[in-house]
Amino acid sequence: MNANFPLKKQTNWTSYDREMMSLALNLAEKGQYTARPNPMVGCVIVRTDKQQPEIVGQGWHQKSGLPHAEVNALSEAGDKARGATCYVTLEPCAHYGKTGPCTQALIDAGVSKVIAAMHDPNPSVSGKGFKLLMDAGITVEYGLMEAQARKLIRGFVSRFEKKRPWITCKLAMSLDGRTALADGSSQWITGSAARADVQKLRARQDAIITGIGTVLADNPSLNVRAQSDEPTTDEDDWFYQACDIGFSQPARILLDREKRAQVKAKIFNDDAQVFWLSDNFAQIQKENHLTRLSGFESLSEMLKYFAEQQGMNNLLLESGHQLAGEFLKQQLIDELVVYVAPKLMGNQAMGLFDLNINKMQITPELHLLDLRRIGDDIRLTYSFESNNS
Amino acid sequence: MNANFPLKKQTNWTSYDREMMSLALNLAEKGQYTARPNPMVGCVIVRTDKQQPEIVGQGWHQKSGLPHAEVNALSEAGDKARGATCYVTLEPCAHYGKTGPCTQALIDAGVSKVIAAMHDPNPSVSGKGFKLLMDAGITVEYGLMEAQARKLIRGFVSRFEKKRPWITCKLAMSLDGRTALADGSSQWITGSAARADVQKLRARQDAIITGIGTVLADNPSLNVRAQSDEPTTDEDDWFYQACDIGFSQPARILLDREKRAQVKAKIFNDDAQVFWLSDNFAQIQKENHLTRLSGFESLSEMLKYFAEQQGMNNLLLESGHQLAGEFLKQQLIDELVVYVAPKLMGNQAMGLFDLNINKMQITPELHLLDLRRIGDDIRLTYSFESNNS
Repeated sequence: MNANFPLKKQTNWTSYDREMMSLALNLAEKGQYTARPNPMVGCVIVRTDKQQPEIVGQGWHQKSGLPHAEVNALSEAGDKARGATCYVTLEPCAHYGKTGPCTQALIDAGVSKVIAAMHDPNPSVSGKGFKLLMDAGITVEYGLMEAQARKLIRGFVSRFEKKRPWITCKLAMSLDGRTALADGSSQWITGSAARADVQKLRARQDAIITGIGTVLADNPSLNVRAQSDEPTTDEDDWFYQACDIGFSQPARILLDREKRAQVKAKIFNDDAQVFWLSDNFAQIQKENHLTRLSGFESLSEMLKYFAEQQGMNNLLLESGHQLAGEFLKQQLIDELVVYVAPKLMGNQAMGLFDLNINKMQITPELHLLDLRRIGDDIRLTYSFESNNS
Repeated sequence: MNANFPLKKQTNWTSYDREMMSLALNLAEKGQYTARPNPMVGCVIVRTDKQQPEIVGQGWHQKSGLPHAEVNALSEAGDKARGATCYVTLEPCAHYGKTGPCTQALIDAGVSKVIAAMHDPNPSVSGKGFKLLMDAGITVEYGLMEAQARKLIRGFVSRFEKKRPWITCKLAMSLDGRTALADGSSQWITGSAARADVQKLRARQDAIITGIGTVLADNPSLNVRAQSDEPTTDEDDWFYQACDIGFSQPARILLDREKRAQVKAKIFNDDAQVFWLSDNFAQIQKENHLTRLSGFESLSEMLKYFAEQQGMNNLLLESGHQLAGEFLKQQLIDELVVYVAPKLMGNQAMGLFDLNINKMQITPELHLLDLRRIGDDIRLTYSFESNNS
């Protein structure tokens, strides 16, 4: 954060403050499938001039191009916004994007106080929203439930702070840690409920990354196939609401050094954007939804490109053991989502990660975030402590 | 069941019956660490001659040589047992063993009705207990919560019905399904809470089976090391009560075809019985707590010996991938208990099972029974559907 940042972080909050920000965070999360590439944001407007505080407006950001959370909440509050307090999960924007700046909307509505969970992690705008509000005489505080807010938009934070998207690695394996038999046959390791769950995981991503090995072996589409009659967990119903709002397919990124993919491969064959990376392309070439790229020296450099040039916050790695091992060795995986099927495939079958570990001491340490049963399978979610300390 | 079985299974039960049998099953389970080699049994005695039924006696079988569940419950009931109903999880015994027959104790106490969950699976005594009670004018019914009762003493049932003990296979692995690095180093994959949990798993067994590979690589004791200050799950406190009652160490069975083990190996060096199986022994040789055995043609034949000649109900397989693979291929594993550590070891590390599976269709299908977090690890419990349908 630069030295000109206009205000200090607050640390004393009331339980009512936390209650309102929890509500705003829950509202924000409704946009998990549709807000991208924008960050999820939620907003609650409260009048505190009566004996009992009254919530007069709630809003969340549904979709890029549609109004931001603050504008939705203000619109619900109407005249009651005058003199009210606005709880918002992210610093209100000060710039004209696809929609007008939220700071101006808050000023115009006459709110007297804005409490934000966190400042905008984008260094080129960070603090500018707060400053505009303060200059207009609005009391501004921030830092309320900041850790939760940062976690919610971890991809957006990673893009600016680590200069790369947040990387989730998804694996589907037998109980004995195998993804395919020795002959490569692998489809349908997990059951239909787990496969439906993967659709949700994909729908939260800006892009899916895979390698040429996976494309040649399985010819996957790697798109989001939402069918509301598929078995689903009780985890959320927002996914099917998202299908109604309409979300864009995540882009696909194919790493294909020697350009072995055929253009008839399924990965190229829908309307989503595809980035095809190979050493054999002369230069960047755009053609409808297909972009041919070359010249990246490393995975890190490639990830930087997608963060900075393509504005991607969240990527999902769905690959074989070679590419997954490479990401792991370079500490580029932030989170691991593993679906474990109630099957055994034996030691000749293919494993998860090509690593070269010789001592127990250097095996990567994970931290279990979540475990749950999904149909006949289980889903385990781990973070990598070392990458995210 | 033979044609002379003295009564038919009942199927109509009241909710009060189920409540009482549930209580008896819960009582029985208290003996899970100490009753062996006897089956766990629980008993509840109820008077129904007043307006409200009254529980007058509860008992469970603590330890071989100590009174059976019925006798404990009768002793608590005293004179109130006369005319009462006795709920018991297993057909009362009719024979003189280390203690007098329970049937006679029930007759002497003057109970008017006995409701059993299941008949004795031992064909040489099955039905005899029921017949003695009926001959004495007691009303006898059975079949109440039979499935639960059979599950509780599944090892005892397996010993008579399948002519082999119930086999649980225990594994400790990294998330990517590896038990040791390529150089064999493996100790302490899982954390202290999981290792304490393994002590409980072992304490429920009549014997632990391992192979010479494991003994040469890790030199394990494979005994129960109970320390009440170790981290424990909230799953049960009975284990530490069992430590007070005093339980015997499970026997160990070492499969060592070429007799490569050294007698100084830890597995031979405590007071527990050890069965050392090799092709190189001339004949059965007993020497203190060590029994040298040879001549088994197959794993099945060996398991039959331990069921029929040694009266073992439950065995735990703790071995490497070769022996575990052999048990699995021969469909000799009934249950799999897998501890998964939050680590990754990579594809060069050692896997769980040597199998020869070429088609997805023939991978063994498991059924998830339980998943839970234990410290930083997770524990997954699966049954093999095909072996236990």
